[in-house]
Amino acid sequence: MHRYRSHTCGALSTAEVGQIVRLSGWCHRIRDHGGVLFIDLRDHYGLTQVVVDPDSPAFKDAEKARSEWVIRIDGKVRLRPEGTENADLTTGAIEVYATDLEVLGPAAELPLPVFGDVEYPEETRLKYRFLDLRREKLHRNIMTRGAIIDAMRRRMKDQGFFEFQTPILTASSPEGARDFLVPSRLHPGKFYALPQAPQQYKQLIMMSGFDRYFQIAPCFRDEDPRADRLPGEFYQLDLEMSFVEQEDVFAAMEPVITGVFEEFAGGKPVTKNWPRIPYAESLRKYGTDKPDLRNPLVMQNVSDHFRGSGFKVFARMLEVEKNEVWAIPAPGGGSRAFCDRMNSWAQGEGQPGLGYIMWREGGEGAGPLANNIGPERTEAIRAQLGLKAGDAAFFVAGDPDKFVKFAGLARTKVGEELNLIDKDRFELAWIVDFPFYEYSEEEKKIDFSHNPFSMPQGGLEALNTQDPLTIKAFQYDIACNGYEIASGGIRNHRPEAMVKAFELAGYDEATVVERFGGMYRAFQYGAPPHGGMAAGVDRIVMLLCGTTNLREISIFPMNQQALDLLMGAPNEASPKQLRELHIRPAPQQK
Amino acid sequence: MHRYRSHTCGALSTAEVGQIVRLSGWCHRIRDHGGVLFIDLRDHYGLTQVVVDPDSPAFKDAEKARSEWVIRIDGKVRLRPEGTENADLTTGAIEVYATDLEVLGPAAELPLPVFGDVEYPEETRLKYRFLDLRREKLHRNIMTRGAIIDAMRRRMKDQGFFEFQTPILTASSPEGARDFLVPSRLHPGKFYALPQAPQQYKQLIMMSGFDRYFQIAPCFRDEDPRADRLPGEFYQLDLEMSFVEQEDVFAAMEPVITGVFEEFAGGKPVTKNWPRIPYAESLRKYGTDKPDLRNPLVMQNVSDHFRGSGFKVFARMLEVEKNEVWAIPAPGGGSRAFCDRMNSWAQGEGQPGLGYIMWREGGEGAGPLANNIGPERTEAIRAQLGLKAGDAAFFVAGDPDKFVKFAGLARTKVGEELNLIDKDRFELAWIVDFPFYEYSEEEKKIDFSHNPFSMPQGGLEALNTQDPLTIKAFQYDIACNGYEIASGGIRNHRPEAMVKAFELAGYDEATVVERFGGMYRAFQYGAPPHGGMAAGVDRIVMLLCGTTNLREISIFPMNQQALDLLMGAPNEASPKQLRELHIRPAPQQK
Repeated sequence: MHRYRSHTCGALSTAEVGQIVRLSGWCHRIRDHGGVLFIDLRDHYGLTQVVVDPDSPAFKDAEKARSEWVIRIDGKVRLRPEGTENADLTTGAIEVYATDLEVLGPAAELPLPVFGDVEYPEETRLKYRFLDLRREKLHRNIMTRGAIIDAMRRRMKDQGFFEFQTPILTASSPEGARDFLVPSRLHPGKFYALPQAPQQYKQLIMMSGFDRYFQIAPCFRDEDPRADRLPGEFYQLDLEMSFVEQEDVFAAMEPVITGVFEEFAGGKPVTKNWPRIPYAESLRKYGTDKPDLRNPLVMQNVSDHFRGSGFKVFARMLEVEKNEVWAIPAPGGGSRAFCDRMNSWAQGEGQPGLGYIMWREGGEGAGPLANNIGPERTEAIRAQLGLKAGDAAFFVAGDPDKFVKFAGLARTKVGEELNLIDKDRFELAWIVDFPFYEYSEEEKKIDFSHNPFSMPQGGLEALNTQDPLTIKAFQYDIACNGYEIASGGIRNHRPEAMVKAFELAGYDEATVVERFGGMYRAFQYGAPPHGGMAAGVDRIVMLLCGTTNLREISIFPMNQQALDLLMGAPNEASPKQLRELHIRPAPQQK
Repeated sequence: MHRYRSHTCGALSTAEVGQIVRLSGWCHRIRDHGGVLFIDLRDHYGLTQVVVDPDSPAFKDAEKARSEWVIRIDGKVRLRPEGTENADLTTGAIEVYATDLEVLGPAAELPLPVFGDVEYPEETRLKYRFLDLRREKLHRNIMTRGAIIDAMRRRMKDQGFFEFQTPILTASSPEGARDFLVPSRLHPGKFYALPQAPQQYKQLIMMSGFDRYFQIAPCFRDEDPRADRLPGEFYQLDLEMSFVEQEDVFAAMEPVITGVFEEFAGGKPVTKNWPRIPYAESLRKYGTDKPDLRNPLVMQNVSDHFRGSGFKVFARMLEVEKNEVWAIPAPGGGSRAFCDRMNSWAQGEGQPGLGYIMWREGGEGAGPLANNIGPERTEAIRAQLGLKAGDAAFFVAGDPDKFVKFAGLARTKVGEELNLIDKDRFELAWIVDFPFYEYSEEEKKIDFSHNPFSMPQGGLEALNTQDPLTIKAFQYDIACNGYEIASGGIRNHRPEAMVKAFELAGYDEATVVERFGGMYRAFQYGAPPHGGMAAGVDRIVMLLCGTTNLREISIFPMNQQALDLLMGAPNEASPKQLRELHIRPAPQQK
């Protein structure tokens, strides 16, 4: 017989009744029923009930066993007494009467129980991650994560993509976020950087004549902690294709992502034919470029109804050309209590308040705004928004660039408060036509909105002739349930267009060559048209596992202070290490 | 029709004759045959011959095209004229008569041609890696690499292993090699380290109750450049299993590795049932723990024949107890010229020379050694080694610990010189029973030979009672054709045995806790018996691609000075970056 087990703890059924078996695993739960010990023995595959009574030679050893001890038992499989079967377990019809027991790995008193669902402070959970990972939910999440990655990989291969590993020790490049640096021992004063994404490498792979690249790629950004971001490292499903237009990328990726979602959605509906929403439209309708389309509310521009009206605050605002008034419809929200609650919420968000109109039974509009603008305009607003008695609408006014984010929050808040959001579905959409440039108030100049390597719509001609701020990019995102889960673009593969694009953002050719030397060089020697995207693996897993905490779907995460409490990272380096790396600590700047 | 292509360049055959098609790709080779242009258009999938004659509207544009320009052509598929078919190409029966041509990406004059097999300096190849990667052999190697990794992954899953991603930003740990460090921005004066291997994490995964882990894992070691090692990063097929003994690891891995080799060996024989060679035996027979078993030569201890003999140099050496004389048989090497050549080679290796005996026709031994020891002893040596007329034997003498490495080299040299090595096969073997400790001459103390986390054979009792230098470990390697391609062990999962094992190597418990805190903690809370191994992905790919240069099977490697010539890494960091990381450059120590 095998040294440790003839079966796993999830394998036995009535078919093995009467057999002598050997099991190894953790003592999940130990119960003493009138001198008879019941041990739920657990391994990765399942639970088996082990019984030891005082007649068994194993009894003395079994009495010593405690929770999470690792033991091996030998015994005979037998049917559980009638009425004690457990239909929730694959092994629930049988038990093993143990006649021999060996302690393989005893356990000290546990700082965190494995059995049971009691919440524990995150610090304890991370320090004793090996215990936390034995708990059912986290264990299952980690296995689901692996299965999702397998499914992504399988579906990418089915679409003709090939997997490559790009370097992790590479050059620092200014792609937006902050790089992690790695001091070079062999080249004093120089540093490698960990890649924020394999962006340049994947484009180089296209220029190297490979056709369809993908990678489950580790990425690294030294960003300040944020709730929806793991500190340090995260994974992307990264891909790139040659000889393609935007539509080709959509055609390749939509089935992959839809397929993965359907496979792991547990029966929840998943969008079949994804809507394509231009960036500007998404902002107008949803107040964000990552709309939660489970929320049925669509905002509308109702400026006309307030222009020259008796509500002087809005009327005066609208005298400035770029100002607008947007309405957030609130079907079923037509009560004073609700409208007041929304108003208080808005004040909590730093707004002066949130104007509203309620429509009472009979269709009459009520509230201060309705009183000020009069019944005709009130009725026109109701008609435009398609509302009815018992509904309300909220209004935000001013410069849309400034209020759009708050308007989006208000739309979400109304949807949540009125229970309009069907949580049990996955709504996916393409967000397209991102602006290529934006005006940076901070630097008082035009800069790239997103990826500087994207192809501007209209190409070099647009760069030469259009107002830069009106140029759109072949740049797109995937939004799901209010999250951006992927982002990509068709790349600018013409060096003259690349140089021009950077020039408009204030970078001369020398800067381009210095910063993106390898890629710039490659553009000179026969670059194919290409494009691609990158999907956030962790965020997709998070959505499919039904959690909002990325640490619930990552096996050994750092905490929010970027500390690895299990391994004790980061830690001190020895003077010898620092000497070899030609660096020394610098006192902190105040 | 699609913007860029209706077919790839590897797709067309006689079935499409008469069709109008669109192709995009690189101008691989352009020939002018009496005013008619033949363009071999290349993409990732193949080559198609495109024909343009002066009657075609595309002719003017085609005349401008140069090597490696990316173009799109439209044209009609037609049969090649009889006698001009190319059976080596899948598209070799047809050509496309182009009527439209668009330049998608022109190319400057090439620093490195893509067409043709001319060798170029490595510096040029790495700086223009995107061109080098378009060349047939390197392109194919990279695709083979991906296919090998796919096969590994598939076979691991078939064996019930699950894939996990372990952290890349982790804690520095003293596992033998030098760590790459990453300064922490949020925690001044502290550093993350890149993992040399996921050793501790994979053991923690077992202690977290997962059963069979694997990962195609990036690993990082800041080692000085060496021919058979990529600087910086490399990949391991890393695995670990719970509730196993050494035999279980062998049973899981042997079919995976054999299967991968058979799949990619191109018909070359692969060892079916791997021999298991104890470490000590491997040294005695082959002079190395990574023997090339394609070489049939087996060394033998022939001390007895020289003890008290007339060859005083050896006889005197043998008066010291630990000294021995080993023979390297050289079947077919019985010529003065060959023996002299081996002698010169040994001198080039820093040896005083290499003693030998030749056996002439008739069986008589010849050479200075034979003359000194006389015919009887010479004949006894011949008989022990199973040699015959026309053969020779070489001898090394002294302390085997000191000469074993040279003896191994001599065995290899004899095998190569006499053409005894069948290059067209893969000989795999397990090397087992590595010593747990070794005596460090440098530190004048006992230290771990290999992995300090291995289980000593005999467990805690052996540690308590045996001479440490006689303890063997459950530690094993896979050797293939003279390379170590994998290494592993059954782990020491008992904390008291771990503490004792480190104590014997001079580390107290506090040091163990400090260095391996997470793992030490985990051992206290129910650790299962476990073990595993790690195989070198790059080395296996290198063997299967039939190259000895790791840069031929890695897509974007650094050069031997750990410089990335394509991306320009490592490079300077800005003062702001250094300030944020709380470090400053330190002048180099002399």
